[in-house]
Amino acid sequence: MKFRKILTIGVVEGTVDEEHWKKIDTLAEERVSLSKGSPDVMKHLRTTDCLLVNPFQMPIEKKHIDAAPSLKYIGAFSTAYGKIDYAYAETKGITVCNIPGFSTEAVAEFAFALILEHIRDIEHSKQLARQGDFSEVAKIPVYEIKGKSFGVIGLGRIGSRIAELAMAFGANVYYWSRTRKPDMENKGIKYQEISSLLSSCDFISINLALSKDTEVFMNGARINKIKHGAVFINLAPNELVDFDVLERRLVNNDIVYIADHTDEMNPEIVKRLSKYKGCILYPPLGFATKEAHVLKQDVFVGNVENFLKGKPTNKVN
Amino acid sequence: MKFRKILTIGVVEGTVDEEHWKKIDTLAEERVSLSKGSPDVMKHLRTTDCLLVNPFQMPIEKKHIDAAPSLKYIGAFSTAYGKIDYAYAETKGITVCNIPGFSTEAVAEFAFALILEHIRDIEHSKQLARQGDFSEVAKIPVYEIKGKSFGVIGLGRIGSRIAELAMAFGANVYYWSRTRKPDMENKGIKYQEISSLLSSCDFISINLALSKDTEVFMNGARINKIKHGAVFINLAPNELVDFDVLERRLVNNDIVYIADHTDEMNPEIVKRLSKYKGCILYPPLGFATKEAHVLKQDVFVGNVENFLKGKPTNKVN
Repeated sequence: MKFRKILTIGVVEGTVDEEHWKKIDTLAEERVSLSKGSPDVMKHLRTTDCLLVNPFQMPIEKKHIDAAPSLKYIGAFSTAYGKIDYAYAETKGITVCNIPGFSTEAVAEFAFALILEHIRDIEHSKQLARQGDFSEVAKIPVYEIKGKSFGVIGLGRIGSRIAELAMAFGANVYYWSRTRKPDMENKGIKYQEISSLLSSCDFISINLALSKDTEVFMNGARINKIKHGAVFINLAPNELVDFDVLERRLVNNDIVYIADHTDEMNPEIVKRLSKYKGCILYPPLGFATKEAHVLKQDVFVGNVENFLKGKPTNKVN
Repeated sequence: MKFRKILTIGVVEGTVDEEHWKKIDTLAEERVSLSKGSPDVMKHLRTTDCLLVNPFQMPIEKKHIDAAPSLKYIGAFSTAYGKIDYAYAETKGITVCNIPGFSTEAVAEFAFALILEHIRDIEHSKQLARQGDFSEVAKIPVYEIKGKSFGVIGLGRIGSRIAELAMAFGANVYYWSRTRKPDMENKGIKYQEISSLLSSCDFISINLALSKDTEVFMNGARINKIKHGAVFINLAPNELVDFDVLERRLVNNDIVYIADHTDEMNPEIVKRLSKYKGCILYPPLGFATKEAHVLKQDVFVGNVENFLKGKPTNKVN
């Protein structure tokens, strides 16, 4: 079985490679690829039965679904699918699939790259070696993950993997999550109330997905609970954090904040926070490994193939 | 029981803290602390029964032992004790103790700090974020440890811990060692002949102690066997590596060499190698964590106490 017409919106050439485009093109008689905001979107929706979309480029609302009477499948080129009205799609018998977990390993390894960079003063010491200056090396205060308390907020795929790696490094690992996770507790990862996790952990990694419930999860009260001297790492959305209160902790230089997704932050806030020694910002490189890139495309195309075979994978509605 | 006179040589104030000096001072009626090369060394050896020494500052030879007829104990302020004539000491009934493994965790974590720094392009991407420049971020080639082959040469304490962490990261881990290690093989760490390890592994960590047998272990033939594109990390002594042949690989930019102990390298060689993109040098910060520093002193003093109690620990002869 094949689709009649695949419409792609905002899935640009650079993000899907030639090999995967070729596979996609075997799955329909015709493919039309539009960029976000193209004036032809509504016209092509009328005749498409398969929509492949980057929802961050182009949210899919009721009006788009209503405009596409033949639509059977929406494939999100992302893990998050909140910007697709998947519930409404369901009422129309449209299957929505996403790409969960392609970046789990990439982000979890990145978390330890950034933590270790900080606690071993890597950038600075690399510069000292380049200059051949070893006079102050003995005075650089570096420390270990082993034996520290390591708290993970949110035990989804990424949070769980970070917790496992923290265990492997010999940390005492705690988590907070809306629901208890007996599997992880069996691995020795202990549940803690959010406020005691914040006030007791030396490392805190936040790995919540963004939703109405989690927006500004790290509000003023919670940020103020973070243990003096702790390292707080956020590879999740910026919207989880109240930057005004965070700044007050950074002014006092009593916590360290490490984050990527700097590109999605308000540049004014980046400028303000960057001046604090305890604020270490990175570009959005957590998910960007070669391996994650390939896996993402494999799952994206595989979802379409599996739907056509009558065995949809990663269906979210 | 107490010693009559503790003589310390090359164990400087900065490396042992006040608290530990206080403990040491409870273990003898008298303490004399000399720096290396002091003209008083031979005089004080005549009356000392306990010698505490940094053998890298001051090797202990037959003549020193012969000069110390009351000597009962030599404590090395180091893991390595090859610079103390421990075999001759044994013939005189002198116990020699060292400080094994105080830096195992510190060095193993450092290895992953440096590997991750390289494969996630941390220094560079940190600079991009600081500049607010995200235009080229998608083109930065970053990759994962997971699924790669990871070879460890030498499965002592540090090599074993690095192998375990590589397993936790999801690498396929291989080792070469003079003797097979069934315990590690049971954990899934597979033995490989040195030449196939070198030619097949994506990451290679050398963790051999320096001895006459291991000097220039990474000779020309072995360096030339290293897989194209591999990352070769050396947190062990520089003397294990033939830098001339290494340079030829670096000229071709077909391997990456990461090392610390840059302070102990010939500055001319540092200058020559530093210009290659694939050569990443660090100061000697592997063992230098706060935790290792405390543990080292604890074991150093504990060894003396245990000897006095008649239950010597970490005796090497």
